[in-house]
Amino acid sequence: MNKFELHILGCGSALPTMKHVPSAQVLNIREKLFMIDCGEGAQLEFRRSRLHFGRLSQIFISHLHGDHCFGLIGLISTLGLLGRTGDLTIHSVPELEGILRPQLDFFCSGMSYKVIFKPFDSSKNEVIYSDRSIRVSTIPLDHRMPCAGFLFEEVEADLNLNGDMIRFYDIPLKELSKIKKGEDYIMPSGEVVPNSRLTKPRIPVRKYAYCSDTAYKEDIIPIIKGADLLYHESTFLEDNAARAAMTRHSTARQAATIAAKAQVKKLMLGHYSSRYDNEQDFADEAKSVFKNVILANETIVEKL
Amino acid sequence: MNKFELHILGCGSALPTMKHVPSAQVLNIREKLFMIDCGEGAQLEFRRSRLHFGRLSQIFISHLHGDHCFGLIGLISTLGLLGRTGDLTIHSVPELEGILRPQLDFFCSGMSYKVIFKPFDSSKNEVIYSDRSIRVSTIPLDHRMPCAGFLFEEVEADLNLNGDMIRFYDIPLKELSKIKKGEDYIMPSGEVVPNSRLTKPRIPVRKYAYCSDTAYKEDIIPIIKGADLLYHESTFLEDNAARAAMTRHSTARQAATIAAKAQVKKLMLGHYSSRYDNEQDFADEAKSVFKNVILANETIVEKL
Repeated sequence: MNKFELHILGCGSALPTMKHVPSAQVLNIREKLFMIDCGEGAQLEFRRSRLHFGRLSQIFISHLHGDHCFGLIGLISTLGLLGRTGDLTIHSVPELEGILRPQLDFFCSGMSYKVIFKPFDSSKNEVIYSDRSIRVSTIPLDHRMPCAGFLFEEVEADLNLNGDMIRFYDIPLKELSKIKKGEDYIMPSGEVVPNSRLTKPRIPVRKYAYCSDTAYKEDIIPIIKGADLLYHESTFLEDNAARAAMTRHSTARQAATIAAKAQVKKLMLGHYSSRYDNEQDFADEAKSVFKNVILANETIVEKL
Repeated sequence: MNKFELHILGCGSALPTMKHVPSAQVLNIREKLFMIDCGEGAQLEFRRSRLHFGRLSQIFISHLHGDHCFGLIGLISTLGLLGRTGDLTIHSVPELEGILRPQLDFFCSGMSYKVIFKPFDSSKNEVIYSDRSIRVSTIPLDHRMPCAGFLFEEVEADLNLNGDMIRFYDIPLKELSKIKKGEDYIMPSGEVVPNSRLTKPRIPVRKYAYCSDTAYKEDIIPIIKGADLLYHESTFLEDNAARAAMTRHSTARQAATIAAKAQVKKLMLGHYSSRYDNEQDFADEAKSVFKNVILANETIVEKL
């Protein structure tokens, strides 16, 4: 199966702790790297994970709180020192460019590569990136400032041919690309060979949904429905439900409720408030609502 | 003896490594904390060192390369989250305010404390800060951009009185403050009691000199003369002396030569290029010129 792996670089919340780096993740899809949020220190965790900087070309920033973007300038600067040449595209709300541009002009002038800003509207569910293997769309979230999560969906790849059958029907080479796209084959005799006889069954497309930071928001359920993995923030436990509502964050129970209603396969919790000592409590609270729960930490590599 | 301790938070150079955090130090002088440079991740090392954020009020930034200042916005933001109220003063070249202000306005609006920028002229050797226990002056360095090191000198405290002698000569209370300042005492009879008989010997003032980043520069020798500790960058070894000259950095041998000529008591090396695997080589190269050499690392707390 093609690679579709999530590396957690950081899963802490606003106040830095000795336990967690602030929010940052890298999704490795067939050796192309997609970064999601970039808190301070993310570039170091990137190196520690042994992922290759050179394979990163798209960064997605959910919102402009420091614990989700203060690591950008350091990462961008380091990529310059390493002599990168390919463009780096940063997807975010429109305000990021105005904040980063003066820093880029001062610290990164004369760099060997270009930083391209692609603004999105965080209030809409829209496709903001796609290539031959992946499609990324925004998930409007409910936080104290414009904020979007991201849904990463594998694009249906071409079908794999059933070699025995292709030879059996003696199908000419020029017909194969159409069959890979799903067409039936019409023999010179006029007989129709259904596509399903000529190709192997499709691999189901995989989906990863990233939702941080947000209050409990049922509107996201249809968007993330059936995802293989949902990362949903759980800054608080139910003991601080009022505080969660006030700061537009979620409790572990709320995250699990979203996971259950969206019928995702697995839930990963993270963005833990530094006030909690025992993170197992987050999993315990969530499991009362949704069984398949794991806790994010900086060593996790989750294969979808 | 009053506390005068140097905590190394980071001593790497521009390219991040798994071994070192970029440049950042904290000097603890009688429980007042003075930060010197603030690379990405410095706030985390600050916490790890168990120093108290609340005791920090002055930050000194040597120059505006990212590995010496990218950690500022994260630290400032965290201090805000912690509800700090006292001013925080940042001493640096004038350009820093223009770069940081837009970030402060966006990320830190409504903070409970003020950030004050105090620009200095990095080409001059001038006192830029003083209080009752310490005086800080700039050390003009030779780098690819305006850059200054910092000399931290204990201020000569008032003399301690010799109680036995004060009683013996029956000296009135109102005379004591003058004697503490070093004056002799004139008895009603006109006889002069020399100050040295009435006071204890002075504790020698301690000096710490921070010199990063810089090419070999003999002009700094009179400024740092006799320092108890000199931190001098040694980005390279002599095998890369040409590269050191080109990038306006120093070799370990050059750092040691400055230490020897300035007759400092101890030399600490740091800002190692990531190209070197064995840092002991820096110490070995330096020791051929100057004996008392230590290597900076993130666990060091050096008592002066």
